Amino acid sequence: MGEDRGVTQKSKDFSKWYTDVILRCELADYGPVKGTMVIRPYGYAVWENIQKIADKMFKETGHVNAYFPMFIPESFMKKEAEHVEGFAPECAVVTHGGGKELEEPLYVRPTSETIIWAMYKKWIKSYRDLPILINQWANVVRWEMRTRLFLRTTEFLWQEGHTAHATYEEAEEEARRMIEIYRKLLEDYLAIPVIVGKKTEAEKFAGAVHTYTVEAMMGDRKALQAGTSHNLGQNFAKAFDVKFLNRENELEYVYATSWGVSTRLIGAVIMVHGDDKGLVLPPEVAPYQVVIVPIWKSEDEKIKINEYVRNISEKLNAAGIRFYYDDREQETPGWKFNEWEMRGVPLRLEIGPREVASNSVMFARRDVPGKETGSVENVVGLVKEKLTVIQQNLFKKALKFREENTYRVSSYDELNEAMERGGFAIGYWAGTLEDERKIQEETKATIRCIPFEQEGEGKCILTGKKTSTLVVFAKSY
Amino acid sequence: MGEDRGVTQKSKDFSKWYTDVILRCELADYGPVKGTMVIRPYGYAVWENIQKIADKMFKETGHVNAYFPMFIPESFMKKEAEHVEGFAPECAVVTHGGGKELEEPLYVRPTSETIIWAMYKKWIKSYRDLPILINQWANVVRWEMRTRLFLRTTEFLWQEGHTAHATYEEAEEEARRMIEIYRKLLEDYLAIPVIVGKKTEAEKFAGAVHTYTVEAMMGDRKALQAGTSHNLGQNFAKAFDVKFLNRENELEYVYATSWGVSTRLIGAVIMVHGDDKGLVLPPEVAPYQVVIVPIWKSEDEKIKINEYVRNISEKLNAAGIRFYYDDREQETPGWKFNEWEMRGVPLRLEIGPREVASNSVMFARRDVPGKETGSVENVVGLVKEKLTVIQQNLFKKALKFREENTYRVSSYDELNEAMERGGFAIGYWAGTLEDERKIQEETKATIRCIPFEQEGEGKCILTGKKTSTLVVFAKSY
Repeated sequence: MGEDRGVTQKSKDFSKWYTDVILRCELADYGPVKGTMVIRPYGYAVWENIQKIADKMFKETGHVNAYFPMFIPESFMKKEAEHVEGFAPECAVVTHGGGKELEEPLYVRPTSETIIWAMYKKWIKSYRDLPILINQWANVVRWEMRTRLFLRTTEFLWQEGHTAHATYEEAEEEARRMIEIYRKLLEDYLAIPVIVGKKTEAEKFAGAVHTYTVEAMMGDRKALQAGTSHNLGQNFAKAFDVKFLNRENELEYVYATSWGVSTRLIGAVIMVHGDDKGLVLPPEVAPYQVVIVPIWKSEDEKIKINEYVRNISEKLNAAGIRFYYDDREQETPGWKFNEWEMRGVPLRLEIGPREVASNSVMFARRDVPGKETGSVENVVGLVKEKLTVIQQNLFKKALKFREENTYRVSSYDELNEAMERGGFAIGYWAGTLEDERKIQEETKATIRCIPFEQEGEGKCILTGKKTSTLVVFAKSY
Repeated sequence: MGEDRGVTQKSKDFSKWYTDVILRCELADYGPVKGTMVIRPYGYAVWENIQKIADKMFKETGHVNAYFPMFIPESFMKKEAEHVEGFAPECAVVTHGGGKELEEPLYVRPTSETIIWAMYKKWIKSYRDLPILINQWANVVRWEMRTRLFLRTTEFLWQEGHTAHATYEEAEEEARRMIEIYRKLLEDYLAIPVIVGKKTEAEKFAGAVHTYTVEAMMGDRKALQAGTSHNLGQNFAKAFDVKFLNRENELEYVYATSWGVSTRLIGAVIMVHGDDKGLVLPPEVAPYQVVIVPIWKSEDEKIKINEYVRNISEKLNAAGIRFYYDDREQETPGWKFNEWEMRGVPLRLEIGPREVASNSVMFARRDVPGKETGSVENVVGLVKEKLTVIQQNLFKKALKFREENTYRVSSYDELNEAMERGGFAIGYWAGTLEDERKIQEETKATIRCIPFEQEGEGKCILTGKKTSTLVVFAKSY
């Protein structure tokens, strides 16, 4: 692959490699305003696939979509004390509209709890109006100082679920149901293994009672918070005075959850699966699961191969497989191999005169070296089988990488060592909020979560106190 | 139907009827900031169906989706002279971000030509990079003084296509292809007949060479511009200095189109098909195409009916029909009939002990009075057949209404009369831009378009000049 077309080596400079992959694969580009991003068609197609999968899971669990305005009156933002402290400093503010200065400045939503709960106040009177299970696909704005494509940009796309319930238990159940859906989205579709757990007090969402999270290890061994789900208790209902008449005919504040994943997931896919050649896409979300490259020398061969591929295309189409037939004449097969490898297409089919003569197809998987031949009769079966194997293999590789870079630590020294090496560190924890901040200052790592999966008892790595709480430490994005 | 649950009579106060339908059917609600709208789940489900249909047609014609930032630097807005004049006065402006005043104010996109062409400048070098056929699903903001739910709100949802081409002819072809797709969307799916044509100079998009439009007649006989497609010529390429090396190896400015439809289409559906009972939804976009209402008196009947409906549900599910089984016990069948009629569900299935005993189903269509019985064996076939008939009947009714309210006019007096009666007036036109403005002032009507379908020659209704240009006049939203 020519210098001008390839990407920086991943092992050499992970950060530059990441940006190279995004720009060269045309997943995204920098927008004109500092910190903004344009999601280009190839990147947006990945997002559309993620949306389809997530939206289906949301609807299967009883959720419906809606759309709320993005302008939030300043006064709304100030109603929930922790929330305003967490979000107001990073908001974009509209002060003028229609050529006039506005009476009240409007915040562009950094998240929509406040405006949604202002509406829920109008809609909720009694337990019969509950639960409300609404999701919204939208853009949000957070004025970030240090930005990175897909991971942290001033504006990004996401979904935000906002539900209202009659009891604390039901809200808690919902918050946990949604973090489980995120686990499924990440592991079964993006092939990214995650640790599912609860955030500590220091790391939870501004305004939440509990925050649940899915944490993934990136290719540079840093953690990425890939999705969160919050049990908001009655905090927003109290801030917006949303009461309902319960079954006992008493007025009670409503219970809430919120949960979201964003275009950041595309960054996770790049960082978890990518390699020195560029992008590696899991078949479940790849815009093209298959690329077909013809190899001909004569016009006669070309005609025969086109005819042969037409037959294959019809079968793949009928089977709902996303593929692209790259029959461009100005590029060589070798160039196309490199191009589509860089772009991460999971499976390549090569069709030359030999394949036509022997009624076969040559397969090249993106995730492993080498080629394999197969019968054209069974092309759909073989493609499906290989895509399944690739999907599973990507998950296994990512899990192996995480396991190889996860350390059990039993002292602060061991934590320090682990954090210097990079990776996840698992240890017992019974420290205070202050202890947590100290660790962050000294190690640059944070407690990513308290995993749902716990085991026995041990001593806190910092205080030595006996505890049953295991946590995961890591440097993170 | 009780006073408290029904809607104002359509014939009595069309405007109040329209708002009643939206609020009572929970299609949308007013947002907290003046002029904003919340699209509630029932309304958003209609939008999702419209999105699916349009997105499929866009993709079938080679378009791809992408996402561009919504903040546009003030300086970009000012690059295309007509464009800034048309849009700047109605923009919302962000002046602060991250707690600081910005060096350059940012406009929240009222439409995205400027930011997209700033990016196209980076991406387009040669004819090999063309065409670019990008569409974006997004929110946009236009600071409107007089707002109305779905039709004109400060923020709304839409799609905007922005394409780049190597020749004028190709751009013209694209602009016309897309207005034809909008015609198809409106007529074949929303059951709304439209007049397809070209806008006059006075009415075209700020920055366009030609604007094509689909114009529909609403239930109050006013016109609604339901979608537009613009041939932008080289105007934006010149403003953003976007040149490409053509096949003759010469630098040339790129040719552009843009085209869009918005959540305004939901307003059109309400106003075209609705009646005194409320909403009437075309089956193609109805969230529920069918509602099933059980009618029982005893527990025994209930069990049998539930079993009977389970069988029907499985068949409808397998056939991909969107339905809802309203088995709520706290409401009567009569209440449910009224409720779902108000909500515009195209077809109701009633299942009582008589239906169970005779292996039949009772059908009630929303668009015509009366009931019909049919065999449960063939329930899917009957439902499909009836939905097709309803879809066609809604279109026919709307077309008949438009024809009954369209007048041929041959003098200014006749135009005045027609505009007083309300409806569309068709007449020959050879007036100037000034004449057009005069007519607007005096009659409150505008030239909606110069229809693609023309015929012979005649005399201009104002100037008496001979011309071959027929136009459509109407008061409009």
